[in-house]
Amino acid sequence: MLINRLCVIGVGLIGGSLARALRRAGACGEIIGCARRRDDLEHALRLGVIDHYSTEPAAAVRDSDMVVVAVPVSANEAVLRDIAGDIHPRAVVTDVGSVKGQVVRDACAVLGERLCRFVPGHPIAGTERSGVDASFAELFEHHRVVLTPLAETDLDALARVRRMWQATGAEVEELAVGLHDELLAATSHVPHLLAYALMNTLGRVDASLSLLRFAGGGLRDVTRIAGSSPALWRDILSANRDPVLRVTGEFRDALGKIEAAILADSGAALLDQLTRAHEVREHYSRQYLAQLDRRTGEET
Amino acid sequence: MLINRLCVIGVGLIGGSLARALRRAGACGEIIGCARRRDDLEHALRLGVIDHYSTEPAAAVRDSDMVVVAVPVSANEAVLRDIAGDIHPRAVVTDVGSVKGQVVRDACAVLGERLCRFVPGHPIAGTERSGVDASFAELFEHHRVVLTPLAETDLDALARVRRMWQATGAEVEELAVGLHDELLAATSHVPHLLAYALMNTLGRVDASLSLLRFAGGGLRDVTRIAGSSPALWRDILSANRDPVLRVTGEFRDALGKIEAAILADSGAALLDQLTRAHEVREHYSRQYLAQLDRRTGEET
Repeated sequence: MLINRLCVIGVGLIGGSLARALRRAGACGEIIGCARRRDDLEHALRLGVIDHYSTEPAAAVRDSDMVVVAVPVSANEAVLRDIAGDIHPRAVVTDVGSVKGQVVRDACAVLGERLCRFVPGHPIAGTERSGVDASFAELFEHHRVVLTPLAETDLDALARVRRMWQATGAEVEELAVGLHDELLAATSHVPHLLAYALMNTLGRVDASLSLLRFAGGGLRDVTRIAGSSPALWRDILSANRDPVLRVTGEFRDALGKIEAAILADSGAALLDQLTRAHEVREHYSRQYLAQLDRRTGEET
Repeated sequence: MLINRLCVIGVGLIGGSLARALRRAGACGEIIGCARRRDDLEHALRLGVIDHYSTEPAAAVRDSDMVVVAVPVSANEAVLRDIAGDIHPRAVVTDVGSVKGQVVRDACAVLGERLCRFVPGHPIAGTERSGVDASFAELFEHHRVVLTPLAETDLDALARVRRMWQATGAEVEELAVGLHDELLAATSHVPHLLAYALMNTLGRVDASLSLLRFAGGGLRDVTRIAGSSPALWRDILSANRDPVLRVTGEFRDALGKIEAAILADSGAALLDQLTRAHEVREHYSRQYLAQLDRRTGEET
């Protein structure tokens, strides 16, 4: 058995889907869930996502050999602090946060001698829905999971987290912490930020909002991700502040070049800008389609 | 018969789909297609989209009682100039351009005494694909078509264009020219521009582009519209210059508020910005879903 007793702290879309996937794969024995609200845990229990539960992280991690912290980025530190003294010396702890710099700083500050058992992780999968009701076993299939081990990380802990994600059907890669955060700022965090900013623009342009009825499917796609949880994204954007602001600066430059070409009535310069963008998109599209062919589900 | 002889100038996604839809509805007798390239017309003929063709606009419109100019925005003026002297006095001319101010200026300049027979129109439907091979009869079902009649427009010409679009299953509304262009700048043109700018940002952040393999479905959705034709969008953005630049200015302000909240580490201000955006999106989503329930196909 890959995992004897899995502890999932935060049984939402990600934590719940991981529990379902590992159970389906026969990769774990029992699953204990932990969350703040007993009602949510009772619900997860009824759904069969978990076998037991506790509302106390410290109690939940005792006797668990794999601990997955699947809470919003801003709650990671408090959870790690709660469990630091109760993690078994051979247990492994990992997280699922979209920002790795912040969680690594938190882990270094609170995990003490257990830091070597902590493997920072980020499954690049999700939907704009949240909660255990949205969870499903196939969520991670053919999706990337990035692990960002530290110099201190035990190699056996890293290997166990890697095998855990592979058991869900994910493709696991390693990146340096800083590179992960720069990359995700560009490919995920700033796109979300732009979608939110566009929605606020439309809200301002058309106070009554009634004219949005003329909007087509392009706007629907562009803004689908603005349907994601504001609290979750406040946390992510705050935690990844510097890379996010660097990329929005780059974006302003790119926007400015297109605006300048329009203002100057320079059809050639404008076409050049749009053509370059189109080429990047085509490149991305080819990469993505190959990956998508192997996937099920909808992801953000 | 609603239309005896339909002339479609530009037999691409929009012109081809309109021809298919009207034929399916039994709303027109014969259909003559016009385009610059004979090969494209032969192809449309083989597909059964048109019955005859001519590469000469002036010849194509003769004896047609409905003329639909379905060419890129930048080509409208030349086509209107070509046909102005050959339009039958009781025929109706309409277009499908995404920008109405430009085509109205062109029409006023070149149509002379036929201006009263011209009805500016814009079907808000399409896909990122183009060409007659991408056309299908259902494209306009339950989509909006906006007509922007002028003070000079004959009421019977307006009524005939309205009935033509209704025969395709579209929902027809009238807007003032300026309002249409402001509205479309906000809901379509600027979202496309932002998608292009984001692609250029990613191309610059990651010169090798290899890291885009970590991108999730959010980016795919946001940037799908950057797969649209650069030449087409150069024309649209140029033709609607002032409204587009006003909206990008508004967008910069909205972006700046989010950036400022992140920079100030103000979780409350950031949450406020994201929550407002989320509410606009939810409002839009509800409107849109009601419309989508009645639709087929994918549209931009």
